[in-house]
Amino acid sequence: MSRVYSTDTPKYIGKKVSLSGWIHQIRELGGINFIILRDGKGQIQAVVSSKKETNKLKKINSETVVSLSGKIVKEKRAPNGVEIQAEKINIISPVYDDMPVTINKKELKAGLDTILDKRTLTLRNPQIRNIFKVQSEIAKTFREFLIKEGFTEIFSPKIVLGGAEGGANIFKVKYFDKWAYLSQSPQFYKQIMVGVYERVFEVAPIFRAEPHNTSRHLNECISLDLEMGFIKDEKDVIKLENRFLEYMVSQLNKNCKKEFEQFGVKIPKVPKNIPILKFEKVQEIIEKEYKQKCKNKFDLHPQEEKLISDYAAKKLNSEFLFITHYPAKKRPMYTMPDSKNPDYTLSFDLIFRGLELTSGGQRIHEYKMQKEKIKKEGLDPKDFTFYLDIFKYGMPPHGGLGIGLERLTMTLLNLDNIRQARLFPRDLTRITP
Amino acid sequence: MSRVYSTDTPKYIGKKVSLSGWIHQIRELGGINFIILRDGKGQIQAVVSSKKETNKLKKINSETVVSLSGKIVKEKRAPNGVEIQAEKINIISPVYDDMPVTINKKELKAGLDTILDKRTLTLRNPQIRNIFKVQSEIAKTFREFLIKEGFTEIFSPKIVLGGAEGGANIFKVKYFDKWAYLSQSPQFYKQIMVGVYERVFEVAPIFRAEPHNTSRHLNECISLDLEMGFIKDEKDVIKLENRFLEYMVSQLNKNCKKEFEQFGVKIPKVPKNIPILKFEKVQEIIEKEYKQKCKNKFDLHPQEEKLISDYAAKKLNSEFLFITHYPAKKRPMYTMPDSKNPDYTLSFDLIFRGLELTSGGQRIHEYKMQKEKIKKEGLDPKDFTFYLDIFKYGMPPHGGLGIGLERLTMTLLNLDNIRQARLFPRDLTRITP
Repeated sequence: MSRVYSTDTPKYIGKKVSLSGWIHQIRELGGINFIILRDGKGQIQAVVSSKKETNKLKKINSETVVSLSGKIVKEKRAPNGVEIQAEKINIISPVYDDMPVTINKKELKAGLDTILDKRTLTLRNPQIRNIFKVQSEIAKTFREFLIKEGFTEIFSPKIVLGGAEGGANIFKVKYFDKWAYLSQSPQFYKQIMVGVYERVFEVAPIFRAEPHNTSRHLNECISLDLEMGFIKDEKDVIKLENRFLEYMVSQLNKNCKKEFEQFGVKIPKVPKNIPILKFEKVQEIIEKEYKQKCKNKFDLHPQEEKLISDYAAKKLNSEFLFITHYPAKKRPMYTMPDSKNPDYTLSFDLIFRGLELTSGGQRIHEYKMQKEKIKKEGLDPKDFTFYLDIFKYGMPPHGGLGIGLERLTMTLLNLDNIRQARLFPRDLTRITP
Repeated sequence: MSRVYSTDTPKYIGKKVSLSGWIHQIRELGGINFIILRDGKGQIQAVVSSKKETNKLKKINSETVVSLSGKIVKEKRAPNGVEIQAEKINIISPVYDDMPVTINKKELKAGLDTILDKRTLTLRNPQIRNIFKVQSEIAKTFREFLIKEGFTEIFSPKIVLGGAEGGANIFKVKYFDKWAYLSQSPQFYKQIMVGVYERVFEVAPIFRAEPHNTSRHLNECISLDLEMGFIKDEKDVIKLENRFLEYMVSQLNKNCKKEFEQFGVKIPKVPKNIPILKFEKVQEIIEKEYKQKCKNKFDLHPQEEKLISDYAAKKLNSEFLFITHYPAKKRPMYTMPDSKNPDYTLSFDLIFRGLELTSGGQRIHEYKMQKEKIKKEGLDPKDFTFYLDIFKYGMPPHGGLGIGLERLTMTLLNLDNIRQARLFPRDLTRITP
């Protein structure tokens, strides 16, 4: 008898099958044992009534690994409308201790620190498990969409000699007898690769030594990065991201509906044309509609992002909003200035449910302009020789973006803290498990 | 007129199109300019005869970024059997200097050091570009195959508190006021995740501070990792890899035939049942057939891997060979011992064209056995608390493997040095570009 997954059992009503998994819950009722068996895909109720087999279960803890065999029957009150009448139980792996945290309730009732301390076990909780099922689906749709759009996947180095985002928040690595750094972004490398394939993407870790302890920062996370050549301006990148989001949501509706339902969260609608507002206009709206003075002329405060997101949802009928033309002062040195007013840039952020998910824009592709820009920021062009070289030898107009995978997961599932959207988060105090 | 890629031009014979890309080669012949235009997908010949336009080309270097428009016509002698009669040329980005290395010949004639020093430019060479086109296809097939097989993608941390492969060859990271390490392998994390999803995979960088300077080692590379629960023994993992290789090769035949042809290399055949030999038997064969004493009773020397690979190709009609049952002494502490003879393990390597591509096997899933094993290796179980926890709370029999993406790319394309199969290699002396 070959093994069947719990989620496939409705196809086997009336048939004998074998199941394997973990004892998620077990209770005895009048000499009959009711087990919820959890496997890699889902759960199923098992009923054990033979005396010999119930005896086996007497000293058994939840999380014991077992296999069961028996007949699948309809049972309205059971999770999938079916249960297995288990005739034989075989214990595969015992449990050696009481679980340090209760994971077999629908919602795991414990503080975030406990959940993360016991991460190797709390990830087994079905609701927590759903988070990363959704996350893996998002990464899949990103790649699928871009491959269809003619992008090539790249693998850029994570040990680097300098940072793309400036010097401060960067982890140092002892590299044999030298010092190196952990990459904060594949920015330079994906631009280099535009010179090779025109359109490239990467799904890979980025490392930021930001000494923040907020609910939306991680020191190691996954960046969904893309870069594309021969664009007209930043609008081409925005349009591509709009279409990616449409594709992502269509796939989530197809493959993760159950996971969102179990979370009690709706999969968002992506407008065909996500509204676009210029940075200046956004500050105007905040001051006018919310009677609130903006804190910084050159950037948006997280709380202001929440307000404009609220505005977009109510007045523009969209949970997504692109903000463009950020001031040059607050954007990286590779950002293309707006030729109409070089104090502003052809950059954009994507705001979703009050949170910045993406930074992107058109990049400088002109050698002299980029060299001057580096100098103007007080940096030494010599430190950027290999990067500057590509502009010396012909680069097309290009742009791109980076999406924080954990932020996207967190926002889609309405999680409170980004640590919930990372399997094994790294922060100021946490480097284990 | 919207832009067309060079590779799509045969569909536009007789039509006017616009093309964009880099001037790969340019030569003048009797007042007519012949250009090879390179774009992100391929190359096309362009003929420019109007005086006004040829004048524009007088001072132009190769690698200049241009757009051309004109009619596509049949031309037998041209690369794709077509050329464009360019009526208009528009210079998009100029070139500021002579190229430091000639990239526009079929094969790039330069030493490996020069090729790597000028990597940002030499990657534009069509033959070198093919290497990474094939590499991206391999990564894609790995994910596609495993998703079909019910695997879930995971993203494990790269900043860790300890190494899975033992203490020595590991990079140290300054993590705020502490020290941490760069992950040598997602081993522990993928095993943990078997407790969650049963079947998981990851495509991610691994970091090894091995002070070797060989043609087959990198200090940072991409590992194609998988781990699967509820296996009978290591044979289940071997069978899965066999099927992956079959799938990979079928996709390479579909999507990368041209790239292999341009390399002058054949895509290998994968037998339905790749031959399997036990380690002991392999040493016997080497000593008997090749009259050569094996250097180490507990492991194979790279040169011995070449001999047995040669044997498999000649006598077993397969370029691929699985070697199983390696001595426990040389395998990591999580390797399942063979119950029939615990000096040996349920482990395997995959050898392809003389090179080890994969290490894998069944893992220990029994708490006490794993704890004892850690002690026996002189390690402290306390350093492995979070890892040992999973075995305490129910783990099924499981196993998995890791494939070196660069080694696989290198071997498939018959490259001499693994650095050729990594976009931006990191080794003892190289941390830039």
